[in-house]
Amino acid sequence: MPPPQTVSKRARIPVGVLGATGTVGQRLVSLLDGHPWFELTAVMASERSAGAPYGEVVSWHLPGEVPAAAATLPVRAAAPDGSLPLLLSALTTEAAASLERPCAQAGSLVVSNASPHRMDADVPLVIPEVNPGHLALLQAQHLGSGGLVTNPNCSSIGVTLALAPLAQAFGVQAAHVVTMQAVSGAGLPGVPSLVALDNVLPLIPGEEDKLETEPARLLGTLVGSGRSARVEPAELRISAQCNRVAVTDGHLACISVQLARRVSEDAVAQAWNDWRAPADVAALPSAPARPVVLLPGDDSPQPRLHRDLAGGMAVSVGRLRPCPLLQHRFVALVHNTVRGAAGGALLLAELLAARGQVPGGWTPPGR
Amino acid sequence: MPPPQTVSKRARIPVGVLGATGTVGQRLVSLLDGHPWFELTAVMASERSAGAPYGEVVSWHLPGEVPAAAATLPVRAAAPDGSLPLLLSALTTEAAASLERPCAQAGSLVVSNASPHRMDADVPLVIPEVNPGHLALLQAQHLGSGGLVTNPNCSSIGVTLALAPLAQAFGVQAAHVVTMQAVSGAGLPGVPSLVALDNVLPLIPGEEDKLETEPARLLGTLVGSGRSARVEPAELRISAQCNRVAVTDGHLACISVQLARRVSEDAVAQAWNDWRAPADVAALPSAPARPVVLLPGDDSPQPRLHRDLAGGMAVSVGRLRPCPLLQHRFVALVHNTVRGAAGGALLLAELLAARGQVPGGWTPPGR
Amino acid sequence: MPPPQTVSKRARIPVGVLGATGTVGQRLVSLLDGHPWFELTAVMASERSAGAPYGEVVSWHLPGEVPAAAATLPVRAAAPDGSLPLLLSALTTEAAASLERPCAQAGSLVVSNASPHRMDADVPLVIPEVNPGHLALLQAQHLGSGGLVTNPNCSSIGVTLALAPLAQAFGVQAAHVVTMQAVSGAGLPGVPSLVALDNVLPLIPGEEDKLETEPARLLGTLVGSGRSARVEPAELRISAQCNRVAVTDGHLACISVQLARRVSEDAVAQAWNDWRAPADVAALPSAPARPVVLLPGDDSPQPRLHRDLAGGMAVSVGRLRPCPLLQHRFVALVHNTVRGAAGGALLLAELLAARGQVPGGWTPPGR
Amino acid sequence: MPPPQTVSKRARIPVGVLGATGTVGQRLVSLLDGHPWFELTAVMASERSAGAPYGEVVSWHLPGEVPAAAATLPVRAAAPDGSLPLLLSALTTEAAASLERPCAQAGSLVVSNASPHRMDADVPLVIPEVNPGHLALLQAQHLGSGGLVTNPNCSSIGVTLALAPLAQAFGVQAAHVVTMQAVSGAGLPGVPSLVALDNVLPLIPGEEDKLETEPARLLGTLVGSGRSARVEPAELRISAQCNRVAVTDGHLACISVQLARRVSEDAVAQAWNDWRAPADVAALPSAPARPVVLLPGDDSPQPRLHRDLAGGMAVSVGRLRPCPLLQHRFVALVHNTVRGAAGGALLLAELLAARGQVPGGWTPPGR
Repeated sequence: MPPPQTVSKRARIPVGVLGATGTVGQRLVSLLDGHPWFELTAVMASERSAGAPYGEVVSWHLPGEVPAAAATLPVRAAAPDGSLPLLLSALTTEAAASLERPCAQAGSLVVSNASPHRMDADVPLVIPEVNPGHLALLQAQHLGSGGLVTNPNCSSIGVTLALAPLAQAFGVQAAHVVTMQAVSGAGLPGVPSLVALDNVLPLIPGEEDKLETEPARLLGTLVGSGRSARVEPAELRISAQCNRVAVTDGHLACISVQLARRVSEDAVAQAWNDWRAPADVAALPSAPARPVVLLPGDDSPQPRLHRDLAGGMAVSVGRLRPCPLLQHRFVALVHNTVRGAAGGALLLAELLAARGQVPGGWTPPGR
Repeated sequence: MPPPQTVSKRARIPVGVLGATGTVGQRLVSLLDGHPWFELTAVMASERSAGAPYGEVVSWHLPGEVPAAAATLPVRAAAPDGSLPLLLSALTTEAAASLERPCAQAGSLVVSNASPHRMDADVPLVIPEVNPGHLALLQAQHLGSGGLVTNPNCSSIGVTLALAPLAQAFGVQAAHVVTMQAVSGAGLPGVPSLVALDNVLPLIPGEEDKLETEPARLLGTLVGSGRSARVEPAELRISAQCNRVAVTDGHLACISVQLARRVSEDAVAQAWNDWRAPADVAALPSAPARPVVLLPGDDSPQPRLHRDLAGGMAVSVGRLRPCPLLQHRFVALVHNTVRGAAGGALLLAELLAARGQVPGGWTPPGR
Repeated sequence: MPPPQTVSKRARIPVGVLGATGTVGQRLVSLLDGHPWFELTAVMASERSAGAPYGEVVSWHLPGEVPAAAATLPVRAAAPDGSLPLLLSALTTEAAASLERPCAQAGSLVVSNASPHRMDADVPLVIPEVNPGHLALLQAQHLGSGGLVTNPNCSSIGVTLALAPLAQAFGVQAAHVVTMQAVSGAGLPGVPSLVALDNVLPLIPGEEDKLETEPARLLGTLVGSGRSARVEPAELRISAQCNRVAVTDGHLACISVQLARRVSEDAVAQAWNDWRAPADVAALPSAPARPVVLLPGDDSPQPRLHRDLAGGMAVSVGRLRPCPLLQHRFVALVHNTVRGAAGGALLLAELLAARGQVPGGWTPPGR
Repeated sequence: MPPPQTVSKRARIPVGVLGATGTVGQRLVSLLDGHPWFELTAVMASERSAGAPYGEVVSWHLPGEVPAAAATLPVRAAAPDGSLPLLLSALTTEAAASLERPCAQAGSLVVSNASPHRMDADVPLVIPEVNPGHLALLQAQHLGSGGLVTNPNCSSIGVTLALAPLAQAFGVQAAHVVTMQAVSGAGLPGVPSLVALDNVLPLIPGEEDKLETEPARLLGTLVGSGRSARVEPAELRISAQCNRVAVTDGHLACISVQLARRVSEDAVAQAWNDWRAPADVAALPSAPARPVVLLPGDDSPQPRLHRDLAGGMAVSVGRLRPCPLLQHRFVALVHNTVRGAAGGALLLAELLAARGQVPGGWTPPGR
């Protein structure tokens, strides 16, 4: 770990990507290209890719070419390396379970998109616009100068962002969620085309459980402080049913919601329209002007038309109407590999950088 | 109308198809080919197709060729014609609203797949396995020797068949339904491919309303008799959200259900497995051996794999598990143009024929 | 028509879009948003849309929202209007046949994406990088101060751009082309989803004929001058077979080519890599840095990955290898609604503006 | 190997399937269910599946359920076993290369769908309707009482069946073929859905080479006899370009053909319409009434509408018209996993059984 005094105020913060060859890893590499605060200096993947230039190893599936700066970086075997102040992790579940805490213990701040540590009591699970205060949990970690912060599941991010304005304005007691999720969420090779074409797959292993537990934690309350800080989950019951549909990007969800008190549709619309991120979050490079956008029209949002709103960082909602069983129902859309994964993790890293929580005294250039 | 005494006991019953060139009309023509009881003798469509042979006019979209016997039938302008004892209607909503009652008044028994008359107090809305007794409403109609019977909406049929065994065994108080529906349900031209590809359309105009009202009528009770007979709808609240997905055939629904009493998952499975149609319905030519099939495996049913079960006449269910909000949840699948439309109407016509309710004394051959 | 002296050197050139509500019209409106030279001042469509604001009339199908400036423009019935110096036409074939010449005669310069006048002897059919000299045909038109210029068919543009470097370097005698075309090429409603899903449609009416005739004209030679100028088509035989596949945007073509002399694969690759637009074309706002891009990798180009290269304005080629029947074969990709339609027409309009051929003395701001 | 005298004339011939769990293996198991001549008695797959019942091991992807008789068969590790007179092989290329000759040497007649031995000088490569005489090559094999016969590549079968009537009537000198192939051809997991959706993949590794060489062998001439028999390939040059499209089943090909002499389109159509299989082939249980069917209509064949013609065993052709470069062009369609794989191999096995070439004196029941 470089001593703080060596850090130039004008240098960008060096960033490594763990699991750089997968679909989320590629999105991270793509989003880091030309980033004003971060400089991609290390791409890490499995042992067997190590040594070769990233551009030769990766099976690039995003539109356009591998960013030139990344293409020539030699791939390194994913391993703890304290010389990297910031690591964005797109590791598989298995690799994340074994590698992320050691990376943090070696002195890196790890911002992870993987699931194994999301519900750990000492690990912040954070959407910057929703619960930035939960980052205080970092003080409860015993990971030396490093740390571990997690980005929620892709569907959880979409649903929680749509619910957060309502939770803050009225309270949310229950939500019934049925998702129609894009195949990019399964990575590569992911869902075979013979399964996805002319079909719906009514099962996404493990997904419903995440979607039924993560939002309550995200909307929960930080209690205690310092080493005894912990998150009390919100009292929010969720029923989630997750389906895979023949869409490349964009998870759509039909949501019915029970609020803590009866309010009109207009009030719900107002809550969404008025909702903004805290000022320091709104000022981050990747922050959308409005995190939740209520679309007009009775057939919106649609994955192909609205997933790229605000560069894929805004969640769109629409079709707000009464529910005969709960109170209100609506449709929500999140770009699963941008806001729901790589972009969400990047925004989280930006928030940590802006708050001076990157080890080694690194701060955004010019600050 | 031919006098009864002229009817040979060995002749098949002459059938006309109204709206024969659309997607449901084509399915009807296809299912009638080689039917043991019915003989297709008239194909009727809009004025502008009249005169030409059916095979030249129809833009056939089903696998295989136009059935040879149908191909040479001259298309007739859809109009009342009492000489046809039985009419199967696949008319558009508008045409059905203006033509179906006149056709019945002219002396035909009209079995309709269209929506305008489904909720009329004097018109039976029937799924043969679920509420055959509602056909007694025919006595309340003032349509001379003719009559009008309706087949429910394609999604309503799937959802109601899945709920009927539970309603009969335990009572159903509420259901939360989110559908993922095939594009064939919109007919031709229907949904533009530019809208369907890489997308989900979160609106199907009019569909949610049908799905929230028809099942309660189908599961309702016939009260009174003769001319004062009417249907008391079941006390069943439904929330329906309908989406169009990139699937050719097969509507999938995620259903959460509140039963009148708490029962185990095993009891629900048992109710499905034990459920059979009444004996006279089960004996009909198009009746599936089991109207509802509980599939093993945790990723079933799937449209491409299971829509053709029992020739497309069986509804399949799966993924039964507890719901954190209501009591149970599961996935149901119906082939929307077979059981959900043409096949359902045909089964209804078969039931009417078996019960001797086709005008002119027509009965199935050999009976 | 405004007298030349009233034109400010700093004003953007007023542009009207004919057929503004269709898929190509929407792309034009989208590409004109924020254009440095052109200002969208009139949107014209069919009579029945006239009067209402564009944003209310159009069924917008592109990602994102209707550009704000366009949304409030009142839609006008498409009709000749000499007060508009420049008209970009995305009219249907029928409307174009009856309206485009009258619009030109009224004094507008019409740059059309429609097909009826493409092969007219006095109408330039132009790809700016390929045959800008053919614009001299304008002098052969008897359309007063107005004029009519046409943009080729979407597939013709892709194939001709791929062939042009080879034609210029070696001569091209014959090409065998099989296309796999996107559904956006058929507009809206276009191909029904029930036809496109899980299917290939081996017919695109009229398309093969265009693809077999337009490239020879585009690669032809301008002979004569002034009023007697005409285009001598190149001696180039093309066999075209056109298919519609389940792709939203991007026409892919498998091309086998017979050159006028035997050259190596390396020479062909070199010809593509060296090829650049004439300097004045290369300097246009919408011109791609390289009009034809040879991609590495043996499985490129692919519609989803490469259609947006250079904002959709570059044609990509790949899989160059010997052909056992002709000499070489390769795969080419063009974004059919950008370079193949709206973007191509816009580039053509930019070239005409840069050359001072817009009526009324209009030139690009600052020139 | 059972001595011939023990074989009952009324028993079905025992058949084993090698590679029974893959997509082609599943088709074989499905087609063998209820087969009049063959009885599936052994399912063989990789070592790790061995021991468990087939129904539990297989990830069944075909519509409907695993056939009941197959579901309870214990999976065996694929290995030579002379007690099985007939083996249908759907092994992977690697497994086929190492296992098929040993299986034949052990005394089984192996009918293989795999590619490694197709071009071996002593191995018949046969389409029953096209070149049944090539089975005489079996006498050139030194494989004891066993033998090895191969079924061509799925695309080669479609193209060769379409060309065979023309080759026999007029001679075929050259063919230019561009295919649009279904994803089922890649098996499972096969092409990732993220690659197939909204895309075309312009590369199928190894496919073009097969399609450029196999038809010439299939249309070739058997010369010599007994141990010196060999196949002289036809003089037929083919250019093949293979693409993967978002279709579940059915390979479509655009074919331009150069015949040995100039004939009219009508003559070509006549050649297809007149063509029939040799009588003994036409009498086989799986033989289609007509192996090649010329469809009317200018937009046929289409994968979704015509792949199941004759149960998937007929190749359909259409859109016959002149080619500006070669002589004629047309479109051909083959169901790749039925006629192009499992069904083709089964038909070949039936032919061998009918000709008495199954070891152990086995003949079809009743013969």
